[in-house]
Amino acid sequence: MHRYRTHTCGQLRPSDVGGTVRLSGWCHRIRDHGGVLFIDLRDHYGLTQCVVDSDSQAFKAAESARSEWVIRIDGRVRTRPAGTENAELPTGAVEVYIDDLEVLGAAAELPLPVFGDQEYPEETRLKYRFLDLRRDKLHANIMKRGAIVDALRRRMREGGFFEFQTPILTASSPEGARDYLVPSRVHPGKFYALPQAPQQFKQLTMIAGFDRYFQIAPCFRDEDARADRSPGEFYQLDIEMSFVTQEDVFQAVEPVLRGVFEEFADGKRVTPDFPRITYADAMLRYGVDKPDLRNPLIIADVTDEFGEDAVEFKAFKGVIKAGGVVRAIPATGAAGQPRSFFDKLNDWARSEGAPGLGYIVFEDEGGQLSGKGPIAKFIPAEIQARIAAKAGAKAGDAVFFSAGPEAKAAALAGKARIRIGDELNLSDKDQYAFCWITDFPMYEWNEEEKRIDFSHNPFSMPNFDHDAFLKLGTEDEATILGIKAFQYDIVCNGIELSSGAIRNHKPEIMEKAFGLAGYGRDVLEAKFGGMLNALRLGAPPHGGIAPGVDRIVMLLCNEPNIREVVLFPMNQRAEDLMMGAPSEATPKQLRELHIRLNLPEKKG
Amino acid sequence: MHRYRTHTCGQLRPSDVGGTVRLSGWCHRIRDHGGVLFIDLRDHYGLTQCVVDSDSQAFKAAESARSEWVIRIDGRVRTRPAGTENAELPTGAVEVYIDDLEVLGAAAELPLPVFGDQEYPEETRLKYRFLDLRRDKLHANIMKRGAIVDALRRRMREGGFFEFQTPILTASSPEGARDYLVPSRVHPGKFYALPQAPQQFKQLTMIAGFDRYFQIAPCFRDEDARADRSPGEFYQLDIEMSFVTQEDVFQAVEPVLRGVFEEFADGKRVTPDFPRITYADAMLRYGVDKPDLRNPLIIADVTDEFGEDAVEFKAFKGVIKAGGVVRAIPATGAAGQPRSFFDKLNDWARSEGAPGLGYIVFEDEGGQLSGKGPIAKFIPAEIQARIAAKAGAKAGDAVFFSAGPEAKAAALAGKARIRIGDELNLSDKDQYAFCWITDFPMYEWNEEEKRIDFSHNPFSMPNFDHDAFLKLGTEDEATILGIKAFQYDIVCNGIELSSGAIRNHKPEIMEKAFGLAGYGRDVLEAKFGGMLNALRLGAPPHGGIAPGVDRIVMLLCNEPNIREVVLFPMNQRAEDLMMGAPSEATPKQLRELHIRLNLPEKKG
Repeated sequence: MHRYRTHTCGQLRPSDVGGTVRLSGWCHRIRDHGGVLFIDLRDHYGLTQCVVDSDSQAFKAAESARSEWVIRIDGRVRTRPAGTENAELPTGAVEVYIDDLEVLGAAAELPLPVFGDQEYPEETRLKYRFLDLRRDKLHANIMKRGAIVDALRRRMREGGFFEFQTPILTASSPEGARDYLVPSRVHPGKFYALPQAPQQFKQLTMIAGFDRYFQIAPCFRDEDARADRSPGEFYQLDIEMSFVTQEDVFQAVEPVLRGVFEEFADGKRVTPDFPRITYADAMLRYGVDKPDLRNPLIIADVTDEFGEDAVEFKAFKGVIKAGGVVRAIPATGAAGQPRSFFDKLNDWARSEGAPGLGYIVFEDEGGQLSGKGPIAKFIPAEIQARIAAKAGAKAGDAVFFSAGPEAKAAALAGKARIRIGDELNLSDKDQYAFCWITDFPMYEWNEEEKRIDFSHNPFSMPNFDHDAFLKLGTEDEATILGIKAFQYDIVCNGIELSSGAIRNHKPEIMEKAFGLAGYGRDVLEAKFGGMLNALRLGAPPHGGIAPGVDRIVMLLCNEPNIREVVLFPMNQRAEDLMMGAPSEATPKQLRELHIRLNLPEKKG
Repeated sequence: MHRYRTHTCGQLRPSDVGGTVRLSGWCHRIRDHGGVLFIDLRDHYGLTQCVVDSDSQAFKAAESARSEWVIRIDGRVRTRPAGTENAELPTGAVEVYIDDLEVLGAAAELPLPVFGDQEYPEETRLKYRFLDLRRDKLHANIMKRGAIVDALRRRMREGGFFEFQTPILTASSPEGARDYLVPSRVHPGKFYALPQAPQQFKQLTMIAGFDRYFQIAPCFRDEDARADRSPGEFYQLDIEMSFVTQEDVFQAVEPVLRGVFEEFADGKRVTPDFPRITYADAMLRYGVDKPDLRNPLIIADVTDEFGEDAVEFKAFKGVIKAGGVVRAIPATGAAGQPRSFFDKLNDWARSEGAPGLGYIVFEDEGGQLSGKGPIAKFIPAEIQARIAAKAGAKAGDAVFFSAGPEAKAAALAGKARIRIGDELNLSDKDQYAFCWITDFPMYEWNEEEKRIDFSHNPFSMPNFDHDAFLKLGTEDEATILGIKAFQYDIVCNGIELSSGAIRNHKPEIMEKAFGLAGYGRDVLEAKFGGMLNALRLGAPPHGGIAPGVDRIVMLLCNEPNIREVVLFPMNQRAEDLMMGAPSEATPKQLRELHIRLNLPEKKG
């Protein structure tokens, strides 16, 4: 017989009845039914009810056992008495009568119970993470995370990609966030940086000729914590491909994400074909570049309608005259809502810094659409009808308006859309709604410095004829501001999983792209010289993306807090409470690393 | 037609003849046969011969192309002229006549050629790693590494293990090497450490109830470089299991390693059943705890024989009287070697600090074994025969002797064994010869401090009755020094792939174990308090191992230098020459991290 177990705690079935077995596990719950002890023995695989009474030589040892003690029992499998079966437990038809019991690992008083779902402060849970991880839900989340990572890997390999490991001790990269630095012992005064992402390495892997790269890559950013991002480290499914267009990236990545989501969605629907929405369309129709498509509402531009002479609503007229826009947000079925619904939305808009949300409620009057509400009277019926048509509103619906400078009006409309959808419960939450956002502008006008600047990623390839691009000059400002980049985002349920791009692999185009944004060759060389040198020695066209693994797992586990899907996370103050990190270094360590402390003065 | 390629450069076959294709890749080699240009176009998947002459509109563009330029060509597939086929190339029966050519990425003058196998200084190769990686052998090594890692993962999963990601920004761990430290911005004066191994995390994963852990884990040690270890980071196949004995670990790990080696051995033999050799036996029979079993020679102890009164060899007698030993190393077939063979070995032994290696050459004299050589005359024939029998020597063989204090004599014998095996070419190199080394002593005598100390890993479980262990006292010195630990090594071809152990999961046994080595509870709490606390809250028996991934890949790629099997390695001075790491930090960064430099004074 094996030293510790013949079966796991999730294995016994009625067919095992009569057999002698050995189990090891944790005492999940111990119930004393007057002379009969029931011990629910738990391991990674399941739970088995064990029973002992004073007829057994193990009774005394069993009486001493407490919750979360690790024990080994030998016993006989028997059918549970009729009426006491537990259909929800795979082992629920049987129990084990304990003949022998050995304590393998006793437990002191628990700072956190494992049995039961009692809430505990996060600090306690993190300090005793190894106990918290024994609890059902967290245990299941971590196992699901592992299965998701396995599935991502499998699907990437099936798609012809190869996994590579890129360095973790490396050089500072121009990703924009703060680096974690590692002082070098061998090179006094110099530092390694932990990679914010393996961006340069994956591009160099392409330049080295490997064609299809992926990595479940640890990334490090010294940023303050957010709910959806651990302070310190996170993982991304890092992807790069050579000899590809943007369409090839979509065709490679979409089946992987769709497949993994279908595999782990627990019955929720997954978008069969990810719609592609241009950045401009997204800002217009959803007021944001990461639309939550579970919400069916679509914003429309009604600037023209409010601009007509026949409309007498002065507030919007003024906005339009100043170059602003009016956006219409439909509120399906809102006509039946009480006045307080409309008032609350207006109050919310004011809290967002807007003057309020105008609205029209549409009713049916003898087969005709008739607008009601504070501003309806300023708008002729015919124009009301056109507004309703643009916003997709019919009798019984309402339409809200957001007016102002385009960016502000769009953003407010986007937020109102979410709010209205939530209030009216319009979203079907039983789905993972994906989309691609495409055609991000390459440049934007920097109003503060009165100059053209990069809009998003300076290293994306502009979607513009290369020869014509090289000829652009300061006089082509309008053309330049109209250039789109081969850059894209993948969005699920309103959460951006990743940006990606076809990279600018041509040194002369990159120099020009930086030049148009006012950066000299010296800046480019200083910040990105290594990469530029590599591009000068035979670089293939290439592009990629890097969906966040933690975010994917959070979506699939339905957890808004990243710490519920990471095995050993830090707290929001970037501390590992269990291991006591960060901690003080010894003077010897600091001396060896050629640094000394430079502590802030203590407040007297 | 796809923007860049209809086929890869490894894809075209005679069945494609007549078709129009598009290929993209690097100009591997360009040959000008007077008006006809041959371009070998290379990508990750292979090489295709492309041809162009002045009849093609692409001729001019082709003439401008240089080695390592990235080009796209359109062309027609045709059969190569009879006699010019290349049977070694999968595409060698066909060529593509170029109708159109586009330069996708030009290349400046190359600091390192890709075509040809010319040796280049390692510094150049590392600085232009992305070029070096285009070369056949390195490219193949890196792809093989990826395939090996995939296979390790697959086999671990098939064995019922789950992969977890443990933190990289964590606390200093008591592994013994130097930590890399990361200053905390949020907690002035405090530091994270990069894990030397996820040892504590994998044990905590077991204590959390996950049962079967593995991880292809990055590990970080700030040690000076060795040929078989990168400075900085390396990877291990980290494994831990709950409710297991040492035998279970062997049964889980052995098929994974055997399977992976069989999969990638390129026809070399792999040990079908890994022999288990106790530490004591290994030191006796091989003079080392990581024996290279490709070498068939086995050392024997012949102290008793040389101790007999009838033996008159005084040098060895003196050694034995002083408590030393004599070890016999067979040299199969050495009798036919010239005198210089024996002299060279003696010279070598002296260079190792030994007085020399005595030896006997055995010859056949009328069916009798007869010893020759400088010391044979001091040893009666009967005892010579016993020595030959113990050393497994027969007529035609020689036996060398190493005498001295046991540890020294064993070590010298071990080195002599290797040397003799190499000189006589006795090893069958076409194999991967594995073994387990078991039963490491828990304690050893620290002669300097005149006290008992830990021999290897203080956290292994002693192989000793737990109750009896708790009762041991200072008077039990001999018993204590005889205790073995549940600790083991896995060795392949003389290379230690990993140590492993059944962990000491009982706090009271751990306290006792440290106490016996003279460490108070305070030391244990200070160094290992977090782990000890976890062990006190219900810990299962558990154990594991962590074979080095880089070493496995080096063995399977037959590369003695780790930099040949790592994608982007640092040089031996722990510098990334390609990315320029480590580098200086800005004053702002240092301020934010609450440190300042403490540079060594420059020598005037």
